[in-house]
Amino acid sequence: MADKKYKIVFIGAGNVATHLGLALLKSKHTIVQVCSLHDSSSKELAKLLNSKSSTSIEDIDDSADIYIIATNDDTITKVARNIKINNKIIVHTSGSIDMKVLQKASINYGVFYPLQTFSKASKIDFYKVPVCIEASNDKTFDAINTLAKSISNTIVKIDSKQRKTIHLAAVFANNFTNHLYTIAEDILIKNDLPFDILKPLIEETNNKIKNNSPAKMQTGPAMRGDIKTMKAHKQLLSKNKDYQQVYKLLSKSIIKSTKNNK
Amino acid sequence: MADKKYKIVFIGAGNVATHLGLALLKSKHTIVQVCSLHDSSSKELAKLLNSKSSTSIEDIDDSADIYIIATNDDTITKVARNIKINNKIIVHTSGSIDMKVLQKASINYGVFYPLQTFSKASKIDFYKVPVCIEASNDKTFDAINTLAKSISNTIVKIDSKQRKTIHLAAVFANNFTNHLYTIAEDILIKNDLPFDILKPLIEETNNKIKNNSPAKMQTGPAMRGDIKTMKAHKQLLSKNKDYQQVYKLLSKSIIKSTKNNK
Repeated sequence: MADKKYKIVFIGAGNVATHLGLALLKSKHTIVQVCSLHDSSSKELAKLLNSKSSTSIEDIDDSADIYIIATNDDTITKVARNIKINNKIIVHTSGSIDMKVLQKASINYGVFYPLQTFSKASKIDFYKVPVCIEASNDKTFDAINTLAKSISNTIVKIDSKQRKTIHLAAVFANNFTNHLYTIAEDILIKNDLPFDILKPLIEETNNKIKNNSPAKMQTGPAMRGDIKTMKAHKQLLSKNKDYQQVYKLLSKSIIKSTKNNK
Repeated sequence: MADKKYKIVFIGAGNVATHLGLALLKSKHTIVQVCSLHDSSSKELAKLLNSKSSTSIEDIDDSADIYIIATNDDTITKVARNIKINNKIIVHTSGSIDMKVLQKASINYGVFYPLQTFSKASKIDFYKVPVCIEASNDKTFDAINTLAKSISNTIVKIDSKQRKTIHLAAVFANNFTNHLYTIAEDILIKNDLPFDILKPLIEETNNKIKNNSPAKMQTGPAMRGDIKTMKAHKQLLSKNKDYQQVYKLLSKSIIKSTKNNK
């Protein structure tokens, strides 16, 4: 079964559908159709994936094996209510939506959550992307598992609660981290300094946690309890109360963590 | 002058002195002495750098060309008051201490601030570390500049105010980021999930900003204004009010930044 090839329909034509679709195509699965309300993105992705294109859930091709909903979270439930697929396998790709919203669409449903941030600007090696899967029954699980294994080296079987926890942790590690880079960039630009100067530091910050627990890698004024430097930093941020508030709260949080780790 | 070799004394024997000392030794400078109040670290580093060791500022070797204070911030001023070096060049390596605290030690003083996080666990390619320098006069600047160029490809001439700004931005990009990883790890561990699962995501988060502004790379529920997911996340964090507070404040900050960037 490991090299079984599936016929797949994508509902949604955004970054997840694009990167996932390309990975599936590369592993010799067939993308039968791309269905998206946005005509231009639907056509664009369909072209990329050698598939048909549709803008209406009414025109869904019912000859596929697996239907992948890769839309934004709000649309998933609506799609599940309206799609007609004769109990074929249907999955969504969301980190935060319960699997059960799909039970209206089919008895064979599941989740196929690739734990990665996808953007137009950046090419992804899908083999390195952990895929978190769960399913409503064994037959569906086996199919999703086979599909996942054909494009990724890391498959994790988890339930909906665990998936929500992983998604939450990912918000801290990815979205919030990126926002801190945004703040750092803004502070530098406003003082006519280039963001590039921080890049070796950022690279090393991330190198260090590849083989070490971040809890053990903490450095900086808050970790050292260096009140003088923290006071000077808060003073430097006196014109931007929002950044100052972030500085204060994260410093407080580091001080507390440091105490707990001792 | 580009390949002039200097005789150097280190005051301090911590991570900065270790990594910087090794880089200087590799570039054929001579480390004359390591001076640290902690006898064992002083001896250990002196051995590594083929130099003498001392535990008292009274015993400082006055035959060197450049004296590098690589201690914690609080100690720098004390050292500057007590060191006797006949107007030899003296620098400190701190991101946040004003250069002028060194004027008690010599008329030839400056700053040699390597913008990197140094730890025992991680080897550093010093050529990639930006070194921020300033000096009290041209002669001193030239010497520090020559020294910096012998170990790094990126030398940045900045004043004390700019250096403090860079140090502040570094706290956001390095210390605070590492703390967010610590929180993410803690959330996962408490739910019996491995932190490793996030590593490809963290790698990609950092890949994306190599050639793009982080302001343009922001993703996630706060950026999308996805109130339902944010509410669910806050609910998941209801047992840890500290993490919940961090989640709320950073989400609010992202929402505000997103509006400003539109």
